[in-house]
Amino acid sequence: MSNLVLENLSVILVRPKFSENIGSVARACANMGCPNLYLVNPLNFDLEKALPLATPKGKRILEGIALYSSLEEALKNFNLSVATTARIGGWRKNILLPEEAAQEIKEMVYLKGRVALVFGSEDKGLTNEEISLCSRLVSIPTMPEAWSLNLAQAVMILLYECFKQLSSRKIRPIHDKNLKLASQKDLQVLFDNLKETLLAIDFLHADNNPDYFMLPVKRFFNRVKLRKNEYNLFMGICRQIKWLKSKVKE
Amino acid sequence: MSNLVLENLSVILVRPKFSENIGSVARACANMGCPNLYLVNPLNFDLEKALPLATPKGKRILEGIALYSSLEEALKNFNLSVATTARIGGWRKNILLPEEAAQEIKEMVYLKGRVALVFGSEDKGLTNEEISLCSRLVSIPTMPEAWSLNLAQAVMILLYECFKQLSSRKIRPIHDKNLKLASQKDLQVLFDNLKETLLAIDFLHADNNPDYFMLPVKRFFNRVKLRKNEYNLFMGICRQIKWLKSKVKE
Repeated sequence: MSNLVLENLSVILVRPKFSENIGSVARACANMGCPNLYLVNPLNFDLEKALPLATPKGKRILEGIALYSSLEEALKNFNLSVATTARIGGWRKNILLPEEAAQEIKEMVYLKGRVALVFGSEDKGLTNEEISLCSRLVSIPTMPEAWSLNLAQAVMILLYECFKQLSSRKIRPIHDKNLKLASQKDLQVLFDNLKETLLAIDFLHADNNPDYFMLPVKRFFNRVKLRKNEYNLFMGICRQIKWLKSKVKE
Repeated sequence: MSNLVLENLSVILVRPKFSENIGSVARACANMGCPNLYLVNPLNFDLEKALPLATPKGKRILEGIALYSSLEEALKNFNLSVATTARIGGWRKNILLPEEAAQEIKEMVYLKGRVALVFGSEDKGLTNEEISLCSRLVSIPTMPEAWSLNLAQAVMILLYECFKQLSSRKIRPIHDKNLKLASQKDLQVLFDNLKETLLAIDFLHADNNPDYFMLPVKRFFNRVKLRKNEYNLFMGICRQIKWLKSKVKE
């Protein structure tokens, strides 16, 4: 398998606490062919502590680390982002198994889209708000009474599943110059616009948890791997609905 | 899944060098429900160094460690032993993939046989003689240039594959209930409704070939394999837009 296949895959660690874990993650990235490692607000990141764990194979990845001050900023240029969680109850829906996430990642990689695997801090994971910035949610199955995985081991399992999917058959990226995907940034803009628009037509109600009722809409648009021309289509429809609204005399 | 299923599974580490790795292995065992950890001639094993890495969940496994002075001795009462290697060339034949090994392990566990997963030292792995003591040989696929996995991560991948095989997938992803697809008939109804709605908001114009400008909309909805719940979502949005239109005084 060629390195090229995975060049669009990145691991993003949000608020990692231990530099040793970051080193171990870099090694796992090298093992499984993921060349990019991003950190969002790491706690006291110390390259000297991380390097021994990265081993010589992970050194280049560690030294190429990109730092961001928010997940939103880090995700800007990605086309698919997969958040990881150990908590699978409550409002969380459509939680993927690692092999299912790897399948979606493979499809996106074939479309030459950029994919981020997003992991929270060792003790607290990702916040609900951070999860809502991501397209998909994945959880690694474990024993119910010991669900907390070491960060680097969780990264390894996800990357291993991706590696398995991506190396399982001849890679045949789709060459379609017209196929431009909407970015995470585009999707955020669209979601904000859709929320305003759906409020305007009383599909959502400001006094009845509109963010909750936006979830199925967001799930739909995250699921379909929206393309740029389709993004433009829906932005145009929202614009016309708002124009209609402006003509209504309340 | 019941603990009982895995009670006959054991991890055996041969000549492990770092107590921290042993702690991390104990944690991985706890995560994936493997209750038994054996060490063969560990180098300066220090429980105090291992405990923090094991976390409270792995503590019991760590404290229950059994020590042996040879792999042969450790394997005496097992029915199936799976040796791990990163070197897949030369005389080695019939090397299993992790999921294939997990399949064999599952079959043995169902027969109530005792199964050992055997890992060598961090730097040198298992000797040829040790491998020849085992029933089967497994190797974790990696990038060719970075084939050396962290010991605890290698243990995690193997245990994870066993856990996947052995857990009956009682927890199916919730998205199954969304897997009812919209019918062709539904799509026709939706397209007619969308056309009326997009005319109502002047996104389409009756005097400017509306069917032509509907094409990208139809292409989008045909592409995404619309589900029944998503169909209902868009029908609801159209209804609200038409309601808004009825309030406009032309």
